[in-house]
Amino acid sequence: MATTAEPTPAIETTGGPTPAKGWGTDAPDQPLRPMTFERRALRPDDVAIRITYAGICHSDLHTARNDWGGTAYPNIPGHEIVGEVTAIGNEVTRHRVGDIVAVGCMVDSCMTCDQCLEGWEVFCREGCTQTYNSPDRHTQEITKGGYTDHIVVRDHFVLKVPHGMDQARVAPLLCAGITTYSPLRQYQVGEGTKMAVVGLGGLGHMGVKLGAAMGAHVTIITTTPAKGEDARALGAHDVIVSTDPAQMAAAGARFDFILNTVPVGHEIDPYLQLLGRSGRMVIVGALTEMPPFRGINLIWWNRAVGGSAIGGIPETQEMLDFCAAKDIYPECEFIAMEEVNEAYERLLKNDVRYRFVIDMSRGL
Amino acid sequence: MATTAEPTPAIETTGGPTPAKGWGTDAPDQPLRPMTFERRALRPDDVAIRITYAGICHSDLHTARNDWGGTAYPNIPGHEIVGEVTAIGNEVTRHRVGDIVAVGCMVDSCMTCDQCLEGWEVFCREGCTQTYNSPDRHTQEITKGGYTDHIVVRDHFVLKVPHGMDQARVAPLLCAGITTYSPLRQYQVGEGTKMAVVGLGGLGHMGVKLGAAMGAHVTIITTTPAKGEDARALGAHDVIVSTDPAQMAAAGARFDFILNTVPVGHEIDPYLQLLGRSGRMVIVGALTEMPPFRGINLIWWNRAVGGSAIGGIPETQEMLDFCAAKDIYPECEFIAMEEVNEAYERLLKNDVRYRFVIDMSRGL
Repeated sequence: MATTAEPTPAIETTGGPTPAKGWGTDAPDQPLRPMTFERRALRPDDVAIRITYAGICHSDLHTARNDWGGTAYPNIPGHEIVGEVTAIGNEVTRHRVGDIVAVGCMVDSCMTCDQCLEGWEVFCREGCTQTYNSPDRHTQEITKGGYTDHIVVRDHFVLKVPHGMDQARVAPLLCAGITTYSPLRQYQVGEGTKMAVVGLGGLGHMGVKLGAAMGAHVTIITTTPAKGEDARALGAHDVIVSTDPAQMAAAGARFDFILNTVPVGHEIDPYLQLLGRSGRMVIVGALTEMPPFRGINLIWWNRAVGGSAIGGIPETQEMLDFCAAKDIYPECEFIAMEEVNEAYERLLKNDVRYRFVIDMSRGL
Repeated sequence: MATTAEPTPAIETTGGPTPAKGWGTDAPDQPLRPMTFERRALRPDDVAIRITYAGICHSDLHTARNDWGGTAYPNIPGHEIVGEVTAIGNEVTRHRVGDIVAVGCMVDSCMTCDQCLEGWEVFCREGCTQTYNSPDRHTQEITKGGYTDHIVVRDHFVLKVPHGMDQARVAPLLCAGITTYSPLRQYQVGEGTKMAVVGLGGLGHMGVKLGAAMGAHVTIITTTPAKGEDARALGAHDVIVSTDPAQMAAAGARFDFILNTVPVGHEIDPYLQLLGRSGRMVIVGALTEMPPFRGINLIWWNRAVGGSAIGGIPETQEMLDFCAAKDIYPECEFIAMEEVNEAYERLLKNDVRYRFVIDMSRGL
């Protein structure tokens, strides 16, 4: 029996599209430049947000330059977003105009699959819609991120910034924060956990702060002896210089948990050997190919190496609430939007302590 | 102030050394042959055991042929041992003459470090003494394993074979059994766990039986379609032929736990992709170098790959008790001692279902 295809039902919207300003790039080898475009009219479950601060994540740079392939141009990055609600759709009840809110790495998902229903929208069976460079579920229009004056996001994906938080320093929590908080919670880091953090960058410095706040004894493992003092100032209790074989040998089979923030492929055997019985190392940075490793380094001592992405929305809200309660913030270097290209160049040289945040009040 | 070195105190012993018979090898390229040697006089905490059955593990063959280096010759392998207590030292209270007992992969450890005190003697900080090819803690004499008529073992390392068990089929539990039981317990496999077993050999077939007995839904993953029926007969609920891309794709992100028994280095990415959110794969066979893998296969879905060695003594006893309660035995092919060289050749061709057991009553 032949069926007639139903036309896709139109989405009810409030008002019309709004003109938006932002900074984006037209090609992998081009700098970011000012751009104008339109944000969609509000759907019933949408929240419109005037952006006040946007963090810069290394993923932004990778996407702008098409390092991972698949970038649609023009590309406007940014998935560490803080701002103020300026309008809400008819069905929105969780957020009100004037609320200080935040948006992280995703802005939509099916909300009906097992993963979504369990609060892990990031692993939506249909694929979550990422905050930028991702097709909208309804229109297929490519999403544009936080390097903009405002954004329109489905209410479920809008986080509440707890009252009393310094909103200027919240933005990096939405990616660097949740990416390090989630594995610490998954692996039950807590009072007395002997924890190490490999690498002291945007992710690593949050790992130190969060681990210490959860009660762990935190050791930073770095190739750079000079970072030792910085790490202690951030809350680390001990420092291992990984290029010193004696220090590495002395730490053999001693750690319960290692948060590995190295952002590129690297040998894991030297770090695995630091794990004690049933020790776990979690990789949060290295997405690409990892070199060979020795099975015995997992089998002996019953170790494991895992990975962790960002958390789901419930866990992201939990992280914000935890940081508010414990007064935890990333270390931020504030810049104006027009300084973004310079910031990217410095990011490539790891010349930032520890996260760039674009302050939209300095002009767009 | 000068001190006079104390002579090493003599170990109090009962009776004298006893003549022993066994089969061993003189060099990597030599077959096993009958040998005579001496078992030590009983120390106060020693148990003498007349061996009735000894399982053949692939590790025996690797050691006999020096595949891993470090084999001391003559080498007498065997670490899956069942027998009857024939004598006990003065201080032994846990075992009595006439008890049916078992010995696995280790026979001594320091018993004072954190690992020993927590029941993980296998990870003794001083190194546990293995059942064969390992220096005795007191005399440095190299241990000789279970391919022998009797053995003398420190009481703590002697397991009780539960009353009513068929001792003929117990021996392989002491290595293949505990090696698969331990990771299932560590990773809390139980009712409803969606579990897969990669490889259907000595370890894999125990993984299927134990997983099913714990309540897991067990899928066997094999390169050999013909093994599917065998797997179902052993208790597997489903079969995936890993060389069929469609079957592997259909199983993507579906498993909670994978027991990986592949005994050599192999690509883990195809198996990691079968794990759902927070899924864990545990490697129990591949000790050597593993090829590169992609970090994204761990990071996306929050997966992990671990390893697991044998368990400690308390867990090994727990495993024996579990198998007794659930009537679980390995599939055994019984041979006479003089057939051991032929058995080794068949082992190299994976021509065994699923474990060779030497029946000492057929002559030594």
